[in-house]
Amino acid sequence: MALPDNVKQLFSGKNFGTVVTRRADGTPHSTPVWVDTDGEHVMFNTNTIRAKYKHLQRDPWIAITVLPSENLQSGYVTVYGKAVEFDTEHGGEHIDAMAKKYLGEDTYPWLQPGEERVIVKVKPESYDGYGVGAQD
Amino acid sequence: MALPDNVKQLFSGKNFGTVVTRRADGTPHSTPVWVDTDGEHVMFNTNTIRAKYKHLQRDPWIAITVLPSENLQSGYVTVYGKAVEFDTEHGGEHIDAMAKKYLGEDTYPWLQPGEERVIVKVKPESYDGYGVGAQD
Repeated sequence: MALPDNVKQLFSGKNFGTVVTRRADGTPHSTPVWVDTDGEHVMFNTNTIRAKYKHLQRDPWIAITVLPSENLQSGYVTVYGKAVEFDTEHGGEHIDAMAKKYLGEDTYPWLQPGEERVIVKVKPESYDGYGVGAQD
Repeated sequence: MALPDNVKQLFSGKNFGTVVTRRADGTPHSTPVWVDTDGEHVMFNTNTIRAKYKHLQRDPWIAITVLPSENLQSGYVTVYGKAVEFDTEHGGEHIDAMAKKYLGEDTYPWLQPGEERVIVKVKPESYDGYGVGAQD
């Protein structure tokens, strides 16, 4: 589904998300992330040893809740969908772009030796929230 | 389980949480909340018609991820546990206390006629995170 502009703006802005994935036994796992969008997908960047990456490899179900960093009562969104692409080819340059957005730094400062960054691209299936034209 | 002080401080401070509950079909449901703690439980305030309240009545499994509102890279926590108490008797005074903490207002400004507020108290069973002495 196509997301409205105000939902995309929550993902393109300097806002934090909370990603929910499912463990092997089906119980939810919840962690914060930096978020992004290419206009069609909502996205975040992780590395290939994180639990959430492993969960999504097995089960692409995902929810991402985003709150605005400023004017916190203005609205929020949760996007529900499926992780449809894991882009390691551009994961390194993307985490640097995220470091620029969130930290104002040209290079992601916490990269570990051998760490492989990955862009997880999520195809939205529904969303709900407040101040975003709730749907779902 | 007892939570360490820095986890409690994330809940007592002016920080936002994301609550994950399970729908009837087991899929996770994720929404932001104001958070609190009484030292033993982690808590949030909702009303009795919200989906998350209904989910917890049926299935007490819950996760709450809290990010600091300031110094956002300093750490975060996700507490996993069970909703063990639903306090409607003190829900109204508690939402006013939350409005004081988050909005600086003496009274919660968005109360609707007939709305019943409820404090959901969560007994922590595990937690993980960053900058909080990860455990789980």
